[in-house]
Amino acid sequence: MNQRLNEYIGIINRRLSELVPECDFGEDIVHEAMKYSLSIGGKRIRPVLVLEFCRICGGSIEDAVDFACALEMVHTYSLIHDDLPCMDDDELRRGMPACHVKFGEAYALLAGDGLLTRAFGVLANSSVSRKNPTVAVNAVSALSYLSGCNGMIGGQVIDLVNESKEATIEVLETLDRLKTGALIRCSAVLGCLCAGADGEKTAACVKFAEKIGHAFQVVDDILDVVGNEQELGKPIGSDADNNKSTYVALLGLEKSKELAVALTDEAIEAIGYFGEEAEFLKDLAVKLTKRSN
Amino acid sequence: MNQRLNEYIGIINRRLSELVPECDFGEDIVHEAMKYSLSIGGKRIRPVLVLEFCRICGGSIEDAVDFACALEMVHTYSLIHDDLPCMDDDELRRGMPACHVKFGEAYALLAGDGLLTRAFGVLANSSVSRKNPTVAVNAVSALSYLSGCNGMIGGQVIDLVNESKEATIEVLETLDRLKTGALIRCSAVLGCLCAGADGEKTAACVKFAEKIGHAFQVVDDILDVVGNEQELGKPIGSDADNNKSTYVALLGLEKSKELAVALTDEAIEAIGYFGEEAEFLKDLAVKLTKRSN
Repeated sequence: MNQRLNEYIGIINRRLSELVPECDFGEDIVHEAMKYSLSIGGKRIRPVLVLEFCRICGGSIEDAVDFACALEMVHTYSLIHDDLPCMDDDELRRGMPACHVKFGEAYALLAGDGLLTRAFGVLANSSVSRKNPTVAVNAVSALSYLSGCNGMIGGQVIDLVNESKEATIEVLETLDRLKTGALIRCSAVLGCLCAGADGEKTAACVKFAEKIGHAFQVVDDILDVVGNEQELGKPIGSDADNNKSTYVALLGLEKSKELAVALTDEAIEAIGYFGEEAEFLKDLAVKLTKRSN
Repeated sequence: MNQRLNEYIGIINRRLSELVPECDFGEDIVHEAMKYSLSIGGKRIRPVLVLEFCRICGGSIEDAVDFACALEMVHTYSLIHDDLPCMDDDELRRGMPACHVKFGEAYALLAGDGLLTRAFGVLANSSVSRKNPTVAVNAVSALSYLSGCNGMIGGQVIDLVNESKEATIEVLETLDRLKTGALIRCSAVLGCLCAGADGEKTAACVKFAEKIGHAFQVVDDILDVVGNEQELGKPIGSDADNNKSTYVALLGLEKSKELAVALTDEAIEAIGYFGEEAEFLKDLAVKLTKRSN
């Protein structure tokens, strides 16, 4: 799996650096800030999933790469805005200075706006769009919905509203389904759109994405308790310090670990439809559950 | 002119209130903030222009209204983010509390993000998109480019970089061409796309938009010196207090007034192509020059 994963990440990183446009005039700070935040972005899970979903549904990776990069741009913008003082006020992102710490709040705000704005232009100007504009229109619609107020932003709102009060497991699940889940689901939608996948294939990919998205968040909460600060790139115990509702706080550590395993199993079952072609996704699901950062 | 203007504004306002979606879950604050900022938005110049450009190029207003609303959403998001403490730190917007003053910074940030995100979904789901997806794709591409880092956001960057230092007239012109001009130009592009206008018609509309966009900014600077606080909804003299470079500071009041008139004349000349059909646009150009707020 690791070879293909590295191949995918290489393709994505090369294309990302091409897709952040050069500045047409003198002032380049916000472009620098966009590139900086894209470069400290981390695991590239969402764009890797777009490529692989497209591949197992019979599509071409070259076609999928711009869709993958657009999704990563939206993810990166959300991290930049989430780290701002008026939001989570985080100074570190993966052990590096957050965008606003390095470039100042105003430029970080604009870098986030710029990445979000650019993402839709990337979809519209993709090779897929030239071949089949309906696919591009559907991709714009899906990305807008899933990253919008009834998707990712909606999750951030629930997060803010429930800050430092004890949420129920139902609230926590809705929050995660939107805040982190929506963009992971979007990776399935974009990959399948790109491949022209039928309803059955799309449903299998979307279900897989939902389950690993949920498992991902449970593992995040577990790592905040039992993780290694060095590997995580942030202090452990910060959720408890911030009175954040987490799976571990609500279910206990053991039940949370069981939940992560159960969700991963359900993800793998969903993708069983694709037989041997699903090896990479199965391995990725297991790797995400066993990760240390 | 006023009758058609009011008709257009009515159509736009009705459609805007339909296009901000209801919240799919319990937390409605960010939807409220989006609706609030759209409702205090003001003159609706950009969406009115989209409708009229579409009409004089032979397109249907019903088709253009979603394109018009998408553009107004982008304009409104830019005002919300521009008013934030880390940017211009303005507490009033047209005499009303700015979004972050009424809803707090975090929700204002997300309301801006939500409007920007939604705008592209509105283009993708418009009636035009269903009839002709290529037009929708071109609209997404244009809106992304003109509101992005080499368009409106680029103008905001130049504004920040030149804050409290004396800019040259060339810098000021580039700043305005991007910060306010790009979205006004976008109204021509979207209206013409919607009508399927040919190159000649599009060029005439774009030139008109560029000239009135420029004139609009010159008049803004003049009003900051000679305007009426009550009508403006903000204190006069604030540009000078903030050491902002303005046309008045660089050219003097008389030369600025002459420039505004000359630009308006050039705009009217550009649109001469459309003969009598251009009456509304001519009147609008004159009205914008003579405005008091």
